[in-house]
Parts: sequence; structure tokens; C-alpha cells
Amino acid sequence: MRGVAILGSTGSIGISALRVLERQRERFRVVALTAYGSAEMLEEQIAASGAVFGGLVNGGPGASANGLSVGQECLVEAATHPDADIVLNAVVGAAGLQATLAALRAGKRVALANKETLVMAGDLVKEAARQGGGEIVPIDSEHSAVLQCVVGRPHSEMRRLILTASGGPFREWPADKLYEATVEEAMQHPTWNMGPKITVDSATLANKALEVIEAHHLFELGYDAIEVVVHPQSIIHAFTEFVDGSVLAQVGFPTMELPILYALTYPDRVTDDAVRAFDPVEAGPLTFEPIRRGDFPSFELGVEAGRSGQTYPAVFNAANEVAVAAFLEGRIRFGQIPEVVRSVLDDHEASALDLESVLAADRWARVEGENRCSQ
Amino acid sequence: MRGVAILGSTGSIGISALRVLERQRERFRVVALTAYGSAEMLEEQIAASGAVFGGLVNGGPGASANGLSVGQECLVEAATHPDADIVLNAVVGAAGLQATLAALRAGKRVALANKETLVMAGDLVKEAARQGGGEIVPIDSEHSAVLQCVVGRPHSEMRRLILTASGGPFREWPADKLYEATVEEAMQHPTWNMGPKITVDSATLANKALEVIEAHHLFELGYDAIEVVVHPQSIIHAFTEFVDGSVLAQVGFPTMELPILYALTYPDRVTDDAVRAFDPVEAGPLTFEPIRRGDFPSFELGVEAGRSGQTYPAVFNAANEVAVAAFLEGRIRFGQIPEVVRSVLDDHEASALDLESVLAADRWARVEGENRCSQ
Repeated sequence: MRGVAILGSTGSIGISALRVLERQRERFRVVALTAYGSAEMLEEQIAASGAVFGGLVNGGPGASANGLSVGQECLVEAATHPDADIVLNAVVGAAGLQATLAALRAGKRVALANKETLVMAGDLVKEAARQGGGEIVPIDSEHSAVLQCVVGRPHSEMRRLILTASGGPFREWPADKLYEATVEEAMQHPTWNMGPKITVDSATLANKALEVIEAHHLFELGYDAIEVVVHPQSIIHAFTEFVDGSVLAQVGFPTMELPILYALTYPDRVTDDAVRAFDPVEAGPLTFEPIRRGDFPSFELGVEAGRSGQTYPAVFNAANEVAVAAFLEGRIRFGQIPEVVRSVLDDHEASALDLESVLAADRWARVEGENRCSQ
Repeated sequence: MRGVAILGSTGSIGISALRVLERQRERFRVVALTAYGSAEMLEEQIAASGAVFGGLVNGGPGASANGLSVGQECLVEAATHPDADIVLNAVVGAAGLQATLAALRAGKRVALANKETLVMAGDLVKEAARQGGGEIVPIDSEHSAVLQCVVGRPHSEMRRLILTASGGPFREWPADKLYEATVEEAMQHPTWNMGPKITVDSATLANKALEVIEAHHLFELGYDAIEVVVHPQSIIHAFTEFVDGSVLAQVGFPTMELPILYALTYPDRVTDDAVRAFDPVEAGPLTFEPIRRGDFPSFELGVEAGRSGQTYPAVFNAANEVAVAAFLEGRIRFGQIPEVVRSVLDDHEASALDLESVLAADRWARVEGENRCSQ
């Protein structure tokens, strides 16, 4: 019986995770749950799951009175809870980093949906895992796909990855319409039902750049060995090429429940009948097309930030977060998101990677990004 | 340095294997080669590869004088050659069975392209492997695909296989034209360049039934757990579904060199740059459609023979071999191939599985099949 802490339990991934864990009650028990501000839903989840710890990042005295741990610190508390063997980190954005580091230093498995953790500070995260004996298992469907293809084999047998991208809601939009796309239009993701931040990132393709950086850290491959192809049906989640030229892929109708379950049971698999059985006739035809790099500048900006290393990825991530928030709030246009990000990146003076400089770069980029969104 | 014997070195698979081995000279050396009747090509191959043993199944005194071992026995001699660690069995048809058994009993790895071996006598073959400490590694692209997806993990984690079929040259032919299809038309395989027997089997879909039986034996799955889907592009070679609902697939432009290399190096992979790099944009769109069972009766006949077990699969295989030979010689029509096979199967009185009864059923079915082809 392994204990699981879920950071971000009231979000899309958190809710899916609780559904998976409900089906796997014989193997796992929920020990800790945290949410950002949805106190009522969190308390319902605690009651239903039997979690012994609840945390609310943005809670008031009422939450404290109800026995919840309140404030940003609750993330690290949950992540280092003594009964938690696995920490499922589904916090949105940069806020998840400290909890990931703490869990890894405490020797826990981190089932990682919070890709920003690796993007901002991949090398620090891996160092924490080495020091504490923890391990990172990705929940992102593309990275879970790669992991499933290489499980049991040395990573050195991998030669190249091709991550797939649905292309988002604007895949076929003409370039001149893109700039003025509305929030409502950006939220119409064709194949995945996700939270608002990642849905916008899927529309700008910033999300795919974050995934390239994440893959670079998870699988120790250079950026030239990580490609992206647009695959509108989201049936094949990634292609993994090996040194002999063979390519494996993970395939299926889109559902986050599968990568969540796999991150919990990895490297083993357990029986679960809830996932809709794959049917190639129903799934096909499967099509692939090059990414429209020129029309979706966020992608290239992100990959270049990854290549540049140091604090650039953290700045890309933070500037993108504030720009997406400003877009969701109607303060900037869709086409301004990459403009804000590029402008912040251009002004950044990088520094070597330690936690202080990452957090400083993150703070700096948020202020700079906000300034540009308010102009 | 591992020694390799190739049975059937002058056929399509044998030639590909020698090409692969030429690139991997630092890891493998060719120790034995056998052919059916192509003496000249065999001698060239022996000279080029440095093999120390050469065998010609259908050779005369001239071959003996040139140092070749002559006659059916040369297969077992090559398969048990003391310097051979791996026996690549690419003999066409039932003739490969005894060599497979001998190699497995001698503790060798059998890289198996001769699927008839497993179809005729799967349980006996596996028993020989257990007794002698040998192992079977498939070369058939579909089975290699499955093996690559499950390597390093227990077979019990597999739940279902979906083998793909190109559909052959007659995939879109109307049912009423099929009966009269010519040899030339049957030899136009859309995606694979193979020998004549397997090319006809791909046109009748008998080959896919043989593969279902082969998969049943290799991966210990019941027939209800092995499905087939038509996939005209032959890019995805098989889907492997696991107990948690996840599906892995092996993907690539069709080439036999990749499964041959994998069967040699399994479970490891070695660097080989000769395989054309996969490009999903170039490969797609990928389409899937149900198999036309009614119009290609050889498929259902073969799978039913597999389900019935005992000596039925051997009879299916033998009757099919003589019917295909008769078709290639212009003695029967394309549509008569399944008629001959069905008629022989209907008359068969099955017996329990031991080597004698398998060989007796094989002989009986050949005589019966020949009789029906000559009517």
C-alpha cells in the first residue's frame, strides 16, 4: 500500500488522479491533498479519499479553522508528508518547483504533471533526485509515451524523439487571423480537455516548447534529437527512435488517466479496465504535418530558450505565464503573447543555474512581463 | 563475437541478413550457410562471408565435390554447428521444423523467419527450447514489433495484440474478380518485397493467419486476444495492448533488415545507420480498415485451424503450401487455393501433438492437397 500526495487536486489532472486512485484502492491510499483556492471542493475530496492532510495555498482563517494547512508552504508540507511515497505534482506553473525539490530530496517518487519544474530548473531537479534518492516519472502524455517505450532498457539506446502536437485550435487558421484570436477561440482545444493555462499554451504551441525542454531533461537527449510533428488526432503521443533505427510509439485515444496510472505503477502495469479500448479503425486516418514555426513564434522562442540554458528557460516560462494570464484576463491580444515573451527574453541577462538565480530570474521575468502587458 | 548460421541464405531474408551481418562484422561472424538449390549464389556467399560450413538441400555430386554438405540433413548440420550461437532460420515452409528443433535442443537462439515451424508444432518447439535452453526470437516484422514493445517486461502485462496486414494486392478488388486473379497480379505486393510463397500468402491473407498462430505461441495469448487490422501503408507493424489499457506500437518504413538485426542483438540494440530514418509526415496518412473475412477465406480457415489445435495447423499449412505451389505453376486458380485447403481440413482426422503425428499430418495433407490440385 503506497501513500500518494496530490498537489493541485482540484485541477483537471488532480481530479483525474483521484478517479484513477479510487479504482486502485487496493494498491494506493491518498494521504495528502492541496489546492490553490477551491476550499469547498478540496474538503469534499479530503472526505471522500480519506486524506489525512489538506492544504490550501490561497486560504483564509476559515480554512485554517477547518483543519487545512494554509499558505504556499502547504505544498512542501504535503510533498514531504511522511506517509507519502509518491507525490503527484499537478500544480500549475512555477509554484510547483519547491515542492518537487523537497519531495525528491526526501527520496520520494514525483509523478510530474508540473512540467515548469523541469523547464525552470531541470538540472537542479535532477541533482535533488540524485542527492535524496527520489525519482521523477512524467505524467505529460508525450513523456509518459516515451518512458513506456524505453522502460527496462538503457536510455542510451534512444537516438531521437518525435513529440506529437495536436496543433491546437488554430492549426489551420491563416496567419493574419491568429493575432486577434479570442480567449473563447483559444479555449476550444480539438482533442484534449485541460485547464485554461495549458490550453492557451497549446494554442500558442508554447506548451510544446516546454515539452521539448522537459524531454531534454528527462531523457538526456540534445535539442537536435528532439523533434515535434503536428498530429491533429492526438492518437500517437510520441515516437521514440532507437540507435538501430527502430521506432516505438505509444498510441491511444486521449486520456490523462493512463499516464497518471502509469506514473503511479511504473515500471509495472496493473489491470485497469476503465480506459477506452483502442480501435485503429475508429482512430484513423492518422495524419502528420510539419509545425508552422513562423506562425506560432512561441514554439521557437521556447526551444531557443531551452538551447540557451542557464536562466533562459525560467524566464521564458515566467514571461509566458504572465502573458497567458493577461490574455485570459483580456488585457493583451493572442498575438501579443509571444511578443511579450520575446521582449522579456531579449532583455534578460542570464546567470548560471542555482536555485536562487532561477527564482530571481522567475521574479524578474514576471515583473518585466507584467510591465509589458500593461503598456 | 557470436557465430551465426543462416538457413536459407539465398532467399530474400537470407540476403537481407547477410547485408545486416556485413555491417555488424565486429559483433557477429557468419559460420554456416545453407540454400535449397542456388549453388552458385551460395558459393559466392560463402566466399564473401567466410562461412566455414555450406549446405545445399537439393544438390548433386558437383556440389559435394565443392565441399558443400548435400541433402536435407544439411539443415540440421548447420543448425547445430558448434560455432553457431544464433541460427537464423529463413527456410521456406515446413522444411524448417527439424532444424529449429535441433537448434533449440542444442541451446541456441533461433532467429525465426520460418513461421511454419511454430504454426505446425508450436508446443513442441517451445518444449524443445525449454529442454535445451534455446530461445526463439521472431524475425517476422509483426512479431518483432510486439517483442520490441514488451522487451524487459513480463509477457503477462500484455492483454491484446492487433497485428496489421497490408491487405495485399487485392485489398480493394471486388469479390467477383478475386477468383480469377493471375500469378502476376498476386505477385504485386504493395509494400513488401518478398519471396513468391509468402507473397501469394499475403494476397490470400493466409500469411496473416499463420502470423496469428505464430503470435499465439510466441506470446502465450489466446486467439480471442489476437486481432488483425488492415493497414495498407505497412508503417505500423503491430499494436500491443497492456493490462492497463495502454498500447505500444512499432513503426517504420518497411524493411526486414531491422527485425533481422533486432533478432540478432535482442534484448540489446546496436547502432545501425542503414535503416531509412522514420518521417511521419512522409509516412502518413495512416489508415486502418477491417479485414474482408468473407472475401479472403484463407484467413478464417487458418485462424480456425489454430483454434482447433492438435494437427490442424500443420494440415492448414501443408495444404496451403501445395495449393500455393500449384497456383504459382498455373495448375489451379487463385480462388481455388482456399477451396483446396478447406477440403483437406474437412477430411482431416486430428491427432494429439507429437513430432511423428505432425510430420504424418503434414505428409498426408500434401498428398491430399496435391490430389485436389490435380483434379
